[in-house]
Amino acid sequence: MFNNVKSVIIGKPLKNEALAGEKLGVLWGLPILSSDAISSVAYAGQAILAVLVPVIGVLAFTNMVYIAGAIICLLILLMLSYRQTIESYPNGGGAYIVAKDNIGIMAGVVAGAALSVDYVLTVAVSVSSGVEQITSGFAGLKPYTIPICVGVVLIITLGNLRGVRESSKLFGIPSYAFIIAILSMLVFGFAKLGSGYVPPTPTLKALADPVIIILMLRAFANGCTALTGIEAVSNSIPNFKDPATKHAKTVLLYLAIIVLVLFGGTTILSSQFHIIYNPGSALYNKAIIVQLAYQVFGNNFMYYYVIFTTFIILILAANTAYSGFPLLVSIMAKEGYAPKQFTMRGDRLSYSTGIIALSVIATLLIVIFKADVTLLLGLYAIGVFISFTLSQSGMFLKWFRGREKNWIPKAALNGFGAFVTFIVVIIIAVFKFTEGAWIVVLVIPGLVYLMLKVKKHYTSVSEQLRLTPDELRAIDLSPANYVNRVIVPVESINKASVRALRYAKTISDNIVAFNVSIDEESGRKIKEKYSLLNTDIPLIIKYSPYRRVLEPLLKFIESTEYTYKKGDMITVILPQFAVKTWWNKILHNHTRLFIERELIKHKHIVVATMPLQLKKDDLKPIKRVDI
Amino acid sequence: MFNNVKSVIIGKPLKNEALAGEKLGVLWGLPILSSDAISSVAYAGQAILAVLVPVIGVLAFTNMVYIAGAIICLLILLMLSYRQTIESYPNGGGAYIVAKDNIGIMAGVVAGAALSVDYVLTVAVSVSSGVEQITSGFAGLKPYTIPICVGVVLIITLGNLRGVRESSKLFGIPSYAFIIAILSMLVFGFAKLGSGYVPPTPTLKALADPVIIILMLRAFANGCTALTGIEAVSNSIPNFKDPATKHAKTVLLYLAIIVLVLFGGTTILSSQFHIIYNPGSALYNKAIIVQLAYQVFGNNFMYYYVIFTTFIILILAANTAYSGFPLLVSIMAKEGYAPKQFTMRGDRLSYSTGIIALSVIATLLIVIFKADVTLLLGLYAIGVFISFTLSQSGMFLKWFRGREKNWIPKAALNGFGAFVTFIVVIIIAVFKFTEGAWIVVLVIPGLVYLMLKVKKHYTSVSEQLRLTPDELRAIDLSPANYVNRVIVPVESINKASVRALRYAKTISDNIVAFNVSIDEESGRKIKEKYSLLNTDIPLIIKYSPYRRVLEPLLKFIESTEYTYKKGDMITVILPQFAVKTWWNKILHNHTRLFIERELIKHKHIVVATMPLQLKKDDLKPIKRVDI
Repeated sequence: MFNNVKSVIIGKPLKNEALAGEKLGVLWGLPILSSDAISSVAYAGQAILAVLVPVIGVLAFTNMVYIAGAIICLLILLMLSYRQTIESYPNGGGAYIVAKDNIGIMAGVVAGAALSVDYVLTVAVSVSSGVEQITSGFAGLKPYTIPICVGVVLIITLGNLRGVRESSKLFGIPSYAFIIAILSMLVFGFAKLGSGYVPPTPTLKALADPVIIILMLRAFANGCTALTGIEAVSNSIPNFKDPATKHAKTVLLYLAIIVLVLFGGTTILSSQFHIIYNPGSALYNKAIIVQLAYQVFGNNFMYYYVIFTTFIILILAANTAYSGFPLLVSIMAKEGYAPKQFTMRGDRLSYSTGIIALSVIATLLIVIFKADVTLLLGLYAIGVFISFTLSQSGMFLKWFRGREKNWIPKAALNGFGAFVTFIVVIIIAVFKFTEGAWIVVLVIPGLVYLMLKVKKHYTSVSEQLRLTPDELRAIDLSPANYVNRVIVPVESINKASVRALRYAKTISDNIVAFNVSIDEESGRKIKEKYSLLNTDIPLIIKYSPYRRVLEPLLKFIESTEYTYKKGDMITVILPQFAVKTWWNKILHNHTRLFIERELIKHKHIVVATMPLQLKKDDLKPIKRVDI
Repeated sequence: MFNNVKSVIIGKPLKNEALAGEKLGVLWGLPILSSDAISSVAYAGQAILAVLVPVIGVLAFTNMVYIAGAIICLLILLMLSYRQTIESYPNGGGAYIVAKDNIGIMAGVVAGAALSVDYVLTVAVSVSSGVEQITSGFAGLKPYTIPICVGVVLIITLGNLRGVRESSKLFGIPSYAFIIAILSMLVFGFAKLGSGYVPPTPTLKALADPVIIILMLRAFANGCTALTGIEAVSNSIPNFKDPATKHAKTVLLYLAIIVLVLFGGTTILSSQFHIIYNPGSALYNKAIIVQLAYQVFGNNFMYYYVIFTTFIILILAANTAYSGFPLLVSIMAKEGYAPKQFTMRGDRLSYSTGIIALSVIATLLIVIFKADVTLLLGLYAIGVFISFTLSQSGMFLKWFRGREKNWIPKAALNGFGAFVTFIVVIIIAVFKFTEGAWIVVLVIPGLVYLMLKVKKHYTSVSEQLRLTPDELRAIDLSPANYVNRVIVPVESINKASVRALRYAKTISDNIVAFNVSIDEESGRKIKEKYSLLNTDIPLIIKYSPYRRVLEPLLKFIESTEYTYKKGDMITVILPQFAVKTWWNKILHNHTRLFIERELIKHKHIVVATMPLQLKKDDLKPIKRVDI
């Protein structure tokens, strides 16, 4: 039943071959890879206002535009830098790979840790912001913010466990819908202003003498969240149609232009319309995109169109982390920096472990931070900019070492990019430290430590198992060296035990059947029934009032009664029901699993699991098992 | 590390022999077995008031005494009935056994289901009521009621996982301390009244014309919770010193007298002191024992002594369910009515599964009902009285069928007991239906259905596995019938795979090594290394871009390339690291477990698990593994 439910929710298992996907051109590559970057328009602007408004009041409108200008310069720099990365890494140049290749393994691991944190926050921030759009439009839903967020994460998770890539073009449409929404809002908004509309000026108290530089830097740090997602294109070059690098570079250019227009436009429009955002105030805590749409369009279709497309683009942005994170972790796991199960693909060929890990951590963050976008943004961006810095530094070293034709301008561009993004890391770490950045500042080194420890462990294990060619040549595989002895624990004399005994006969001549009875009486019964069996295998009976099999068995093996020589292998045969339903899972095999887990601690005991199949509907009249 | 933490919290594993405990006389048997019954004084009286006060105001004080009188009559009847049960079932006469033996298996299962529900509610009610005493005395703790309750359940759980029976005499002391507390309160209270003290009369509105009969029956149904726990003695006869039945009967008599005095006394005293309890009112929602103690003693040592002893006796009452429930479920599991893992004893010889199940369900109830004693009492008592009825009916049938000397008065007593308790079941089911009894009315049949379904499944399985003596004699165990073939999946040529190949040699002559490579290049490398090995075992290499081993392996087995004949057994040897720490558990064996789980679905595939031991501190410089 569990499997049925699972296949309805997750979908039928897919074959390996289903993995090769469709390749993308510019038309679909742009919207599919841009959702993370362009959706940040929804929170970056208001994050700037959230810092400025409570302190400098209406002055915020002017200063916000300056800060947005600085961020747009950074955007252009990053776009130019990443075009060079695309050129050099046609197979995909994520920060982990670029840093590892050019700086060293440690830089790669740091980039991997920073990116992991970043992916988790992408989910938490995007979902919280998406739901904030909805609760800003429909205030009645506000009390249910956290459950709605958790529900959205759950839906994204299930979608990804199903393997959502199949329908990827579908994911391009909302990006275009969102771009149209914001562009329309800009056009109508500026037209409204041009036609003489004067927006209401809110009365805002400005505190005297704010420490303006620190304030501006804190607002800038917040606004840098506008640049998250810009690196998505360079990670995904193999998904493009040929010529892939050319397509990727074009997409990145267009992406930068779109972010520039949308982010710049909404910033100027918000400042003209005197939009206030102050998450601490019950009056001004609505998402700025929703406030803008309301002022520009009023309460009509376009207002709701803006809300819904913004919501959807943010959900898609969260979804991009679901392809990025599991892939990143699986690459790191393949190299030994993360537990190997991250490399295993589930029934639907998705990296289930990574998907579930991402969802669990993101959900925890959402619940702990109560889906408060402004609080979550305190943690965001720092991971992104650390990976920008490492990636740009890696590219700089690559040019510097390679000294190909024209290396100087290329190195200069990436070097300058590394320098500027590093400065941004410092700004964020310092000026957002008390607002959550300290968590990330602690978590990233912690993750790096763990990753290195995991790697060390796997390395140690493979060293322990390694054989040199000389050793290999010297190995004698002939079994004459030692005896394989078999013990068949029998609970009662039934088809399961007969099947196990028969199998034992094929693998050894040195077999004992082993029974634990609660008293002499039941021991005698077993012996009597066993004697009917035409076999020379001796039956050993031990007594234990609580029918624990394990201790008597181990005691027997170590006793002089059992003529076991050091070096011999002992195979213990345990029957196991092939559990087909969750129902069977609850009712069977618990004792066996417990015994296996304990026996396996002994170096010379092999546990052979003998499958037993029950009829599928074992509650219907009985059909007997073949032996 | 997990094991270390576990052994600190749960204690070192115990040997089977440690189970035989000390036997009890009357002096210690009485307090140890009575905590559940006598602690109900803390909630039964106030449960009556909770029904009466909001409707009939001060009239409640008189009516409460009548109701308590009826309940005391019931108590005497039950005491006399159960003395007969003790006489007839010297090995312990729980309702499950008595009903099953004398009425039939169905009645036993119903009694088992009712008792299970009852045990869970004993925990929820007793803990909630215990914590209510504390929050009544220390009002500042009121907001933390639920966390405190959950914490208390956790402590009881850990205590029981450790196996608390060891120090059982210690558990007798609080019962005596509680009895002394309440007796002192009664003596001082009546003395105070005798010396002319006039308690304040609260102003209470009485509603006009209450439907008095229904009200009285509802109050009576609530008060019947005073009788829970009375059956504990008859379940525990084997724990008494010889002559056990005589000791048990004496203990039951004393127990009834104590409940009579404490419950009757506090009821009269509450009515004289005009104690009001109305959980809906912020003014009168303090536990009545605490209110009484305050009026009798004032704010001094005795007041706190009463509060603490009441708290502790209630916690011990909850604790009794922790010996009763796991034992009951283990008995039912042994007979196939519950999953077999309930019969397994943990490291400390306690039935861990039953203990954990009890805690989880009780905690859920506490959280759902917000630790509100009055609400939880709506569910309580019905299960107890169903088991009373079945047990008394069973005894009646026993006398009736046996017709020993003097059977008529004995049958009459148990028959009357069955009749009266059945009437009480109806009263509770009807008049408490809307207050929670409906849940129990639904849950008990649901549990019965599940238990029967589990039994049917186990019966079907053992039928499927059964062999008749004739069949046994006809079985040919000689292995000539079929071939045992071995497949050794090798990931790389290392000590693990060499060890597996060497083991394979001892169990078969028909072996293949099987490798899945991601491409030709790595396949070639494996082949080269393998060729260094001095063996005739062929190496099969298959390609899968994602290194999934399972599908290529199954495909190979089914292919014509593999000359596998129907009826042959195939043994697949998988190496497994003996994981000693939680850390290793995360990093190893996941792929192996997945492959084993899938292979075992195939009837002719045996999975042999080959243990590999890593050095304990495998992060230190490497010591190499022996092969």
